[in-house]
Amino acid sequence: MTSQNKNSVGNFFEDFSLNQKIDHATPRTITHGDVALYTALYGTRFALHSSNEFAKNLALRESPIDDFLLFNIAFGKTVPDISLNALANLGYADCKFLKLVYPGDTIKSTSHVIGLKENSNGETGVVYVNSICTNQNNEVVLDFKRWVMVKKKNKGSLDTKTTLPELPNELSKVDIQEIALSYNFDLNNFNHTDSGSTASFEDFTVGEKIDHIDGMTVEESEHMLATKLYQNTAKVHFNHYYEKEGRFGKRIVYGGHVISLVRSLSFNGLANAFKIVGINGGSHAAPCFAGKTVFSWSEIIDVLDINENIGAIRIKTNGIGDAPASDFQDKNEDGKFNQNVLLSLDYWALIPKKK
Amino acid sequence: MTSQNKNSVGNFFEDFSLNQKIDHATPRTITHGDVALYTALYGTRFALHSSNEFAKNLALRESPIDDFLLFNIAFGKTVPDISLNALANLGYADCKFLKLVYPGDTIKSTSHVIGLKENSNGETGVVYVNSICTNQNNEVVLDFKRWVMVKKKNKGSLDTKTTLPELPNELSKVDIQEIALSYNFDLNNFNHTDSGSTASFEDFTVGEKIDHIDGMTVEESEHMLATKLYQNTAKVHFNHYYEKEGRFGKRIVYGGHVISLVRSLSFNGLANAFKIVGINGGSHAAPCFAGKTVFSWSEIIDVLDINENIGAIRIKTNGIGDAPASDFQDKNEDGKFNQNVLLSLDYWALIPKKK
Amino acid sequence: MTSQNKNSVGNFFEDFSLNQKIDHATPRTITHGDVALYTALYGTRFALHSSNEFAKNLALRESPIDDFLLFNIAFGKTVPDISLNALANLGYADCKFLKLVYPGDTIKSTSHVIGLKENSNGETGVVYVNSICTNQNNEVVLDFKRWVMVKKKNKGSLDTKTTLPELPNELSKVDIQEIALSYNFDLNNFNHTDSGSTASFEDFTVGEKIDHIDGMTVEESEHMLATKLYQNTAKVHFNHYYEKEGRFGKRIVYGGHVISLVRSLSFNGLANAFKIVGINGGSHAAPCFAGKTVFSWSEIIDVLDINENIGAIRIKTNGIGDAPASDFQDKNEDGKFNQNVLLSLDYWALIPKKK
Repeated sequence: MTSQNKNSVGNFFEDFSLNQKIDHATPRTITHGDVALYTALYGTRFALHSSNEFAKNLALRESPIDDFLLFNIAFGKTVPDISLNALANLGYADCKFLKLVYPGDTIKSTSHVIGLKENSNGETGVVYVNSICTNQNNEVVLDFKRWVMVKKKNKGSLDTKTTLPELPNELSKVDIQEIALSYNFDLNNFNHTDSGSTASFEDFTVGEKIDHIDGMTVEESEHMLATKLYQNTAKVHFNHYYEKEGRFGKRIVYGGHVISLVRSLSFNGLANAFKIVGINGGSHAAPCFAGKTVFSWSEIIDVLDINENIGAIRIKTNGIGDAPASDFQDKNEDGKFNQNVLLSLDYWALIPKKK
Repeated sequence: MTSQNKNSVGNFFEDFSLNQKIDHATPRTITHGDVALYTALYGTRFALHSSNEFAKNLALRESPIDDFLLFNIAFGKTVPDISLNALANLGYADCKFLKLVYPGDTIKSTSHVIGLKENSNGETGVVYVNSICTNQNNEVVLDFKRWVMVKKKNKGSLDTKTTLPELPNELSKVDIQEIALSYNFDLNNFNHTDSGSTASFEDFTVGEKIDHIDGMTVEESEHMLATKLYQNTAKVHFNHYYEKEGRFGKRIVYGGHVISLVRSLSFNGLANAFKIVGINGGSHAAPCFAGKTVFSWSEIIDVLDINENIGAIRIKTNGIGDAPASDFQDKNEDGKFNQNVLLSLDYWALIPKKK
Repeated sequence: MTSQNKNSVGNFFEDFSLNQKIDHATPRTITHGDVALYTALYGTRFALHSSNEFAKNLALRESPIDDFLLFNIAFGKTVPDISLNALANLGYADCKFLKLVYPGDTIKSTSHVIGLKENSNGETGVVYVNSICTNQNNEVVLDFKRWVMVKKKNKGSLDTKTTLPELPNELSKVDIQEIALSYNFDLNNFNHTDSGSTASFEDFTVGEKIDHIDGMTVEESEHMLATKLYQNTAKVHFNHYYEKEGRFGKRIVYGGHVISLVRSLSFNGLANAFKIVGINGGSHAAPCFAGKTVFSWSEIIDVLDINENIGAIRIKTNGIGDAPASDFQDKNEDGKFNQNVLLSLDYWALIPKKK
């Protein structure tokens, strides 16, 4: 007697409907243990997340958790329902970091299906979701949209209407301003020795490119530890038995692992970009595999004055596999990414002004 | 001048005597750091151990630690004295989880030798121990029996009488009932969305088999990190220099690592089997090595009504190496395990009833 | 437009000046998460750091962090400024552990350049620094000297005067005594069952050698996780893309990882050497690489009576790669280390006296 409906094979394209709301399982209390693992996985050095004393100097009670630790855990919750049968994470948009999360807080995620588009091959479709992550006080801490290509259960065309959501190419500056001010950071005691950089808002110029120099090699066990820490269940990251016969002949590194790695590497040049407030968009230009060494570079693509102490900079950071980032690899003339580009992420970060 | 008695090569069969009591070294405070590592190692998603809020809804003060995190740490304490010279962990029996352990609690283990049997080859013997794990208040949190095949210091037969302990094939239902009630879980607010499953006690039928579908590949560094976290010192897990010349030509994965992995995989189908109360028995049918992908399936082998809100189900979960579990691999007709079976574990877990 | 001075390529020999003071970036709050990772990385079993109850019995409020976890984090802070362009860590001296550090404490490091010596090849120089690590109350917790061979930016000789610092071959016994007493350990309740050894101060004899028996194999991901946990940014540990073309054709294991591994292995024989108070000196005799199995042995080279309850022993512990330590490998007759020696560390540890 085989149980038919207790285990889950995940949702297929046909299982989604427009405006569907999905409350995801497994709420998660984030702890100092997660923070330590995050440091061990990425070697991250941003002082706000490394030192309670640094955080207290900014008028916080202690170090909040890293923005991408939050993002990856919130994202992981959505995987069993949204992307277990995904062939590709196609993109992110409209991602807002709305509240700080501290060790001890418990988060959960809910997704709303905001768009559906069947592909002409009759084998896959694109599912657009808006995922909202809340803390134990029901405050929204993170709000983002993503779209994934999901397999169909049954091949052949469906009688569905395509509904494409409105996806802004970028967050509005009004939103960035509002979010930035909501944190009530006091930057009067922002310590540039502790932070590791003297560069202030005024030192950054639109168009400026920064080579983050350092590279880190990804190991199988590291990306799997990370992805399991995020309780992300996507099979392609963990199952060598299947993946050795799969598309690439090996396990694929979770895209969020590359994001975290690239953010950590960006410290060497952007140490004072201390708080991410929003992600305009992101592309996983190529899959990453264990054995690759990841480098990164950034370009300042916009700036925004927040108040007398704080500015925001819009940054594009590219992750580069198995090549130094000193060539600032990006899209080629044909509009396709250079073959070494793994990731291109476009986001807003806060940075102190000169005193 | 070489020190003769400060280091330890562990106990050999001749070193054990019936009724001997061994207080094991290195008490261990379990922390949120251990919990985070456990999540990273196994990707476990049982809500009780993931979310303080979920635990509070069950009338607990916060998330207790995972049952097998406790088991593996308690077991690890016994290794330097009991099984450093073991050739095989032959079995477990009569394992009772008697109290919840919370981050901040400190545990230690004590073993009593309850049986001894010299093997006819004159080279090994079987040592049976009852290991008891207590917390900082001297409350017993875990009580289990295991037996291991241990090398003799000197070959040849001893003048010992064989004493075999009474080892129940299964825990009594009275014991399960008593333990289950002792936790005082309040399941009125058990949230089936958060837990990840709507299946309740009434939905499970004796004989029902569940394929847990997912598989995870084991890496050398992951099983070693786990086994070191448990302060388990058994050499075969860590020492490639010796093991490359050993029985298998490589390091052997600690059996408790496989147990934890299989329990974590069983979430996909048994998400509501939220608390293990006892283990009837277990067999490591075959050694596990790094590189293997572990799958699992379960069979419901008994059910027990606890009270108006809670039921218990007796589960046999098999861990399968390098093959999907959809064939429900178990013992063959000859009574030997199918070659892909790594583990067969027989245990009782609590599960909410329908409201 | 490429940014010129926001990223850092580290300091070269020409960038250092005598008496220069460098406040290092990224203060670090050490947590239970770090402690758990340290246990998982090294399997360490010293009871003082494993059990709050054991620590309370010594009149401490809870378990302080392991001495080498502190050392490695404090050291890591200095790397971006001192040794990013180092070709070799030449040595340590005069290292004093002055105060206990507890989970929740925040540390930072400052270095003073105490010596400079240009090498005759005109390509490198030796930089001597005194690094001081303080906690959030500005108390010095660790004070040590080290010297590294650093690349020059421009080849050719400089017009610098060589200044060599005074580096004691060993810590003074007066210092050891003073530090030992400053901790106010109460050893009346030191539990020799919990600690894992009955050996007391009186049982150790100068000249005595102990084979620590056990060996542990190093994996790429483990040494990288450790080194990232310490926020140590030295490139040779992380970057396979460069190192595959480098001196050894592979990544080099951070020396502090070997120190921690060897200290953990020394538990089997030195379980009661519960607190390191100072390091007289240390040499990384040969580089360590992933895949090597590390063994270790120790020699008692001096003893010091502290008070009626406490003694100190001066220990030389050697780490041995890919060979059992039972041959007590050390320097050969030619004064060079045996080829299997990875590390030779000379330090003082406290140990209880007989009651």
